[in-house]
Amino acid sequence: MSGTDYRKQLICEGPVIILVEPQLGDNIGMVARAMANFGLWELRLVNPRDGWPNERANAAASRADHVIEATKVFDNLPDAIGDLKYVLATTARKRDMLKNVLGPQEAVGNLRQYFRKDMACGILFGRERWGLHNDEVALADAIVTFPVNPAFASLNIAQAVLLISYEWMKSGHTKPDETAFEAPQTQVADKSELQSFFEHLDSALNDAKYYYPEVRRARMTDNLRSIFTHAGLKQQELQTLHGVIAALERRWLVKRNSRKK
Amino acid sequence: MSGTDYRKQLICEGPVIILVEPQLGDNIGMVARAMANFGLWELRLVNPRDGWPNERANAAASRADHVIEATKVFDNLPDAIGDLKYVLATTARKRDMLKNVLGPQEAVGNLRQYFRKDMACGILFGRERWGLHNDEVALADAIVTFPVNPAFASLNIAQAVLLISYEWMKSGHTKPDETAFEAPQTQVADKSELQSFFEHLDSALNDAKYYYPEVRRARMTDNLRSIFTHAGLKQQELQTLHGVIAALERRWLVKRNSRKK
Repeated sequence: MSGTDYRKQLICEGPVIILVEPQLGDNIGMVARAMANFGLWELRLVNPRDGWPNERANAAASRADHVIEATKVFDNLPDAIGDLKYVLATTARKRDMLKNVLGPQEAVGNLRQYFRKDMACGILFGRERWGLHNDEVALADAIVTFPVNPAFASLNIAQAVLLISYEWMKSGHTKPDETAFEAPQTQVADKSELQSFFEHLDSALNDAKYYYPEVRRARMTDNLRSIFTHAGLKQQELQTLHGVIAALERRWLVKRNSRKK
Repeated sequence: MSGTDYRKQLICEGPVIILVEPQLGDNIGMVARAMANFGLWELRLVNPRDGWPNERANAAASRADHVIEATKVFDNLPDAIGDLKYVLATTARKRDMLKNVLGPQEAVGNLRQYFRKDMACGILFGRERWGLHNDEVALADAIVTFPVNPAFASLNIAQAVLLISYEWMKSGHTKPDETAFEAPQTQVADKSELQSFFEHLDSALNDAKYYYPEVRRARMTDNLRSIFTHAGLKQQELQTLHGVIAALERRWLVKRNSRKK
């Protein structure tokens, strides 16, 4: 799925991702890669088990070097979030806490509001096995959780970071369905162009004695027009079809001429 | 991030995921896991490089056994999509084809419409390195692509499947931000409850000679009321604060009594 275009500017913005006591370097690297895909870049680690830097993280980051190189390490969570104005905690389990529970889209909507006011924000992700402790969740302004299959909820931290990062990028678009590239700029054919095609087709089929018996001509014509109308043809496609008809006509003319000899 | 509740019913529905010539078993397993998280279950493989079943896929699936066990293998793509009514092709690269290009949310909206009419649908994902060939994309009704960082577009197939699966689950919710669990059902305090708390606080601060000089009393009261109003306190939290005030009052009373002796 790689579509990297190195001539384009690298997007580096948005909330800080904070991993609390991550264990596996592979996961840290996959988190960096997930972030980079959607324009996030600021990663903080609280007490990573295997220290930092970490070879396996570098390998798993798949060239998200700008994220890996900017990663900061902290001894404790309060220091890691000290400069932030708004912090969310991700969790898959219900906590006995009076805190708002947000879905990813709503959570990212809140983050985007702070971001637009230049107020730094962050999102906490817990340990691979245990997630965040309650005293860590208590430091966050609200909880984020994902709408998963209740009988199979098994998102790893890299997947959770991917979903949040993806929602982050979407939240910055003016259209919810903005994509990295668009369909070729070609116009849907006008009805008059479609009409010319119908005439070409009719004339070719007439010559080929397709409309038989004559009494069914109207019905046959209607069916054909219906097919080529609901296909939503583009101008360029209509040219292709004109070419197809012309080729079939020629073939038939050639046949007829050869028979005449 | 595990929050699996085995007492709940396993969701198994939605579009078929079709991997064309996947190479690594780990990726196939991660795809199965991503699908299961968001309720998808039907996986088809076209010519998997290392055959099927695949030990590494089983390991990476992280107990998404219901997906792995139901996986079907096909010799070619036309057979793998033969029974489907609507097929999307994922790609990170622009193709020179007159096909609609959809973002994940719009794509899943289309899939959901077919699903509601009981018409089987599928989504094609290409090889790890090369994606789909043009003749494979040509078999699809439309293209799906992800809104990634143009200068760092490096989604692997499991990540791409995760995002599509996540959008699929969201598209089935009546609220876009439906979550797996909700905040405890506790009411935001009524203004009358807040008023009682203000009175309690005022009386305690009066006794403690907090309001000094007297001329600043109104301003000090306003500031305090403002703090506790914009905090959006819940009823239960207000009870906690009543307890805090009461405890501080008692401490002060004890001190005063001990001085009297």
